[in-house]
Amino acid sequence: MAAAAGQNIAVVVHRAGDLRLETRPVPEPGPNEVLLRMHSVGICGSDVHYWQHGRIGDFVVKDPMVLGHEAAGTVVKVGSGVTHLKPGDRVAIEPGVPREMDEFCKTGRYNLSPTIFFCATPPDDGNLCRYYKHSASYCYKLPDNVTFEEGALIEPLSVGIHACKRAGVTLGSKVFVSGSGPIGLVNVIVAKMMGAAAVVVTDLSASRLQKAKEVGADFTIQVKNETPQEVASKVEGVLGCMPDITVECTGVQACIQAGIYATRSGGTLVLVGLGPEMVTVPIVNAAVREVDIRGIFRYCNTWPVAIALLASKRINIKPLVTHRFPLEKALEAFETTKRGEGVKVMLKCDPTDQSP
Amino acid sequence: MAAAAGQNIAVVVHRAGDLRLETRPVPEPGPNEVLLRMHSVGICGSDVHYWQHGRIGDFVVKDPMVLGHEAAGTVVKVGSGVTHLKPGDRVAIEPGVPREMDEFCKTGRYNLSPTIFFCATPPDDGNLCRYYKHSASYCYKLPDNVTFEEGALIEPLSVGIHACKRAGVTLGSKVFVSGSGPIGLVNVIVAKMMGAAAVVVTDLSASRLQKAKEVGADFTIQVKNETPQEVASKVEGVLGCMPDITVECTGVQACIQAGIYATRSGGTLVLVGLGPEMVTVPIVNAAVREVDIRGIFRYCNTWPVAIALLASKRINIKPLVTHRFPLEKALEAFETTKRGEGVKVMLKCDPTDQSP
Amino acid sequence: MAAAAGQNIAVVVHRAGDLRLETRPVPEPGPNEVLLRMHSVGICGSDVHYWQHGRIGDFVVKDPMVLGHEAAGTVVKVGSGVTHLKPGDRVAIEPGVPREMDEFCKTGRYNLSPTIFFCATPPDDGNLCRYYKHSASYCYKLPDNVTFEEGALIEPLSVGIHACKRAGVTLGSKVFVSGSGPIGLVNVIVAKMMGAAAVVVTDLSASRLQKAKEVGADFTIQVKNETPQEVASKVEGVLGCMPDITVECTGVQACIQAGIYATRSGGTLVLVGLGPEMVTVPIVNAAVREVDIRGIFRYCNTWPVAIALLASKRINIKPLVTHRFPLEKALEAFETTKRGEGVKVMLKCDPTDQSP
Amino acid sequence: MAAAAGQNIAVVVHRAGDLRLETRPVPEPGPNEVLLRMHSVGICGSDVHYWQHGRIGDFVVKDPMVLGHEAAGTVVKVGSGVTHLKPGDRVAIEPGVPREMDEFCKTGRYNLSPTIFFCATPPDDGNLCRYYKHSASYCYKLPDNVTFEEGALIEPLSVGIHACKRAGVTLGSKVFVSGSGPIGLVNVIVAKMMGAAAVVVTDLSASRLQKAKEVGADFTIQVKNETPQEVASKVEGVLGCMPDITVECTGVQACIQAGIYATRSGGTLVLVGLGPEMVTVPIVNAAVREVDIRGIFRYCNTWPVAIALLASKRINIKPLVTHRFPLEKALEAFETTKRGEGVKVMLKCDPTDQSP
Repeated sequence: MAAAAGQNIAVVVHRAGDLRLETRPVPEPGPNEVLLRMHSVGICGSDVHYWQHGRIGDFVVKDPMVLGHEAAGTVVKVGSGVTHLKPGDRVAIEPGVPREMDEFCKTGRYNLSPTIFFCATPPDDGNLCRYYKHSASYCYKLPDNVTFEEGALIEPLSVGIHACKRAGVTLGSKVFVSGSGPIGLVNVIVAKMMGAAAVVVTDLSASRLQKAKEVGADFTIQVKNETPQEVASKVEGVLGCMPDITVECTGVQACIQAGIYATRSGGTLVLVGLGPEMVTVPIVNAAVREVDIRGIFRYCNTWPVAIALLASKRINIKPLVTHRFPLEKALEAFETTKRGEGVKVMLKCDPTDQSP
Repeated sequence: MAAAAGQNIAVVVHRAGDLRLETRPVPEPGPNEVLLRMHSVGICGSDVHYWQHGRIGDFVVKDPMVLGHEAAGTVVKVGSGVTHLKPGDRVAIEPGVPREMDEFCKTGRYNLSPTIFFCATPPDDGNLCRYYKHSASYCYKLPDNVTFEEGALIEPLSVGIHACKRAGVTLGSKVFVSGSGPIGLVNVIVAKMMGAAAVVVTDLSASRLQKAKEVGADFTIQVKNETPQEVASKVEGVLGCMPDITVECTGVQACIQAGIYATRSGGTLVLVGLGPEMVTVPIVNAAVREVDIRGIFRYCNTWPVAIALLASKRINIKPLVTHRFPLEKALEAFETTKRGEGVKVMLKCDPTDQSP
Repeated sequence: MAAAAGQNIAVVVHRAGDLRLETRPVPEPGPNEVLLRMHSVGICGSDVHYWQHGRIGDFVVKDPMVLGHEAAGTVVKVGSGVTHLKPGDRVAIEPGVPREMDEFCKTGRYNLSPTIFFCATPPDDGNLCRYYKHSASYCYKLPDNVTFEEGALIEPLSVGIHACKRAGVTLGSKVFVSGSGPIGLVNVIVAKMMGAAAVVVTDLSASRLQKAKEVGADFTIQVKNETPQEVASKVEGVLGCMPDITVECTGVQACIQAGIYATRSGGTLVLVGLGPEMVTVPIVNAAVREVDIRGIFRYCNTWPVAIALLASKRINIKPLVTHRFPLEKALEAFETTKRGEGVKVMLKCDPTDQSP
Repeated sequence: MAAAAGQNIAVVVHRAGDLRLETRPVPEPGPNEVLLRMHSVGICGSDVHYWQHGRIGDFVVKDPMVLGHEAAGTVVKVGSGVTHLKPGDRVAIEPGVPREMDEFCKTGRYNLSPTIFFCATPPDDGNLCRYYKHSASYCYKLPDNVTFEEGALIEPLSVGIHACKRAGVTLGSKVFVSGSGPIGLVNVIVAKMMGAAAVVVTDLSASRLQKAKEVGADFTIQVKNETPQEVASKVEGVLGCMPDITVECTGVQACIQAGIYATRSGGTLVLVGLGPEMVTVPIVNAAVREVDIRGIFRYCNTWPVAIALLASKRINIKPLVTHRFPLEKALEAFETTKRGEGVKVMLKCDPTDQSP
């Protein structure tokens, strides 16, 4: 087993439907990189999608690619230029690293840089493996009172942080979150943390809405076959007013339409969920009421925020982890995720430490 | 003539196709109002639309309504509570006046107040007449070196100011203005005033594009039957990069699509032109590149800005006026506007002073 | 007693040291006003200051003036133009009402309007009385689950809301609150509500710091005779980094200096406490680190936010009330406040209902 | 001469009063660097200050240091990782380069990074020499229609861009620029470019004010021994209102005080000039009128903006150059600058091309 621990087992997708556990060489960190012994890596819907379909939009798996981008681990080696980390440091990994200091980076929006490296987006390998190297600047030290799994969950949490920041959630906001999957849930958590006075969540599934209640939603609405206008009307009904902000997490055309109708004049609709490329929307309704429509692309500048919140114990995301598997049982873990069981499946990559 | 000057002649639409010159009583100003002798009133596309169709969207002409909302005149009487104006003051009129100090007003977005009075939007009368009363707080004193017609043109100019402010045009911006009608032109003027480094304008009409060049556009592109992607590509071609900001002034679906494709990641598309209620757009393209989509509803807080600029002689909007008619020839003026001749038709309401 | 209830008893300051209980006529509301039966009115430091000194800066008590501006009551009569309130409505009162719709109002900063009426600021009467009339637009309906005293406490809470908004407190902020009096405490409460990850409070008094802990401060530092740089260093020590934001609530020169030294480069120092007119500050230190220095003048747009939060039960400000007196014992209440006992002294103006 | 062109002559300060022309080795660019043949380098007040005093604040010349940071040149060699530049490219050089991707960099405020390299700030060498290597990401390609000297002037222009951006200058702003030296002048130019409706400049010197007029100031006021309040009053007098924004470029205590008194409630005072470390200011006046006080530290994200403006021919900064010297006559050029003659002295570093 000690020998096995030295081997770099990785979860690799070769093409649609072809997922394998393979052994890869342990990488050598460059001058500004660190080598990490991975501890906990969450499975994301996009990982399953690459496995099932071999592509997401224009991103196509052409060569075998390691999956995984929700991750935390321990520094085992540092490059010559690294000053803020040392072997033994526990870190959370931000998976997107711009390769050049272009104008997007210089203006604080590095997530939009076309030069970005991103874990488990073809052709860039992810970190669902034993040993992984990463840019030291995008590894963030975890305080002792934050677990590896919390560190790994910063990635999905970051989607909520970035969405709620782009939405302008602030003290007293009334927020409508459309969709109660993992991304809807993190948006509920973050919106409440930012001072939202009331959050209402819609979903088709009563059990998913129950989860929303548990993480802090003030109201839930189980939708069925209402028109978008009817959904908007129900949202206004439970809140007692139209929401200032809508966070749309489904990508479904009717939900985007409902998001526009529902949002208060002068408010903001943030599109987090992605669906069909072309969507028909009531654009005049949005325009003449000055309802801004803003998308998000991943996130930027969220890890320090998330770590500060986790360290302060003001936020509890541990309940999001519902399943755990050792790395060796990754295929079983992916099957579980595919079946839609639970909220978040966590893979434990360190055979000597499978704790949270 | 002195007698005629005392009569309150007004341009009134009764229903679709029925436009009349009528005499109305001279109104009495309330405590916070002023009575104005109108001097110059521009004809807007919406005035023509009410005349031709008797409605715009949900706003229907049910009772006879005075047209006109691009206006300047002279104070002849002030209400008891008015302190900042006195008879003889030359003023420009902001046509939208909120009736209640609601949350939209308190937060500086009074244009979104559902309580708003707006000249020549049913059922509110406009100011295409000889005598008109208005809230004193929404009449702005004109300096001696600003003409009445410049005062009247502040209204269309305000659409450009509000659009460019919502777009975030700033020093060095690259701007794409879609459509070269009057609203496209004011956006070109304002964008350049705000420091835009390059403005490119598209239109079907070469003569309209010529006008864009005259008011300061750096580049023009005559479009024909290009796809939205092709238009976007041409815009990038002439600018040498994708525009930070697109100001869409046509409302046409293909143009909105082009606006999304054209705008740089992290940029903003402002929707000024209004077309069909439902529009199909490449929403994923906008969302994952964080291209914000923002509409505008009229304007707010633009008159003081416009007056300061006009007084400083830094902006020349006089060339926008291409036709003038005395108020008595209003029907002829409307026919001219309907034929699409020139840019702006101005009605001269004061029989004793028909100067610009 | 029923007769007494009809009498309008008021707490009136005549000059420095001369505070009286008097009977005044019940006022008649104007068209846009409401008449209120006052229920709970808190005593503010400024009320005591007018009583003790007859002035605050340039504001001098020349004629007898009713005190009180932290207030809630019940509508008993509405003016002819009032639509959103009716007799029986329980409301919180925003004490500042702009008299004209000037540019400050139109741009959402009505607190800066030079035309503002403000309760208990000479020469404007306050509402520490039985019957009081006020602009309906600045009376906000209280939900059933919010008490009158919570409604009255919205005024001091608003100082914290406005300060933290101007400071830009947001998710993950590290905040340094200088001073642990009532205003320091509301800033702690609000900063936490807005997502601050850590708040540290300094004060001379251990008992005041204890109160800060109770309302949510993560850290407290009892200061004595440290230099400003030493205070800054201690703040950084407990936070583990320099704070993004400092909220200075004492007005003391050394504290303002400490606030500048303490704040992280690119951060913000908000000045809430007011002390001597001229203050010596390390301006170069602030400037070259781009630490913004921003004051606040009262507040604007805070009542709806506060009511939404109180209704959601996400915030508990009831513990701030430490003393209660019936209106008839106002002089005793003022003596108590002057002695600095407790946090907030509440006067109960309705002889038939002395509940919180 | 051809041989001389290959030698790397540099202007080196050894200690206070000791400035030398020396020959240094031609540097070898690293993987992300470019080697530049310098063309035009402006002399800044800070260069003269290091020569005269051997220090600026905490920055002390301990080892010989090459001066110069307002510079443009031609790429002669590129590192292996450089993709956006090639030999022959003409570039302007941004002198500040962060060494690490820390939080300041990630959030778009890289000028505040404590890791920053900055030309001619001890111990970092500047580029007043023949051959110089620099981070490729901070070299910006000049279009053919922008001269090298314009490229070099982007550095002082950037101070104006950063100051006016931090000040929030926008369409219609009324701006007060305190001080009419080179930095005051670039602020006048930039404020006008950003749409300021009126700019007033104060200075002790009539000839400097004349220069302000030439670059676009609407009004000038020659000050003598007025009190700060009197200066504020004169500024309001010529503008017809208080300025929204004050840009203070002298660092003198009385001028900072005047800046506070002068600025409109809700406006912004930007501190550009630096004087004594401790300054006495009317802090209550600023605070209760919500006049924000913001410093600037150099600049960030200004080169692309400046190049776009220069390429568009919307801005003419060429008149700022009043003297030119070949690099070999650098000592004479420094003497000229020290005497305060003209506005900007330019050193021509390329013996084969001394054109602007």
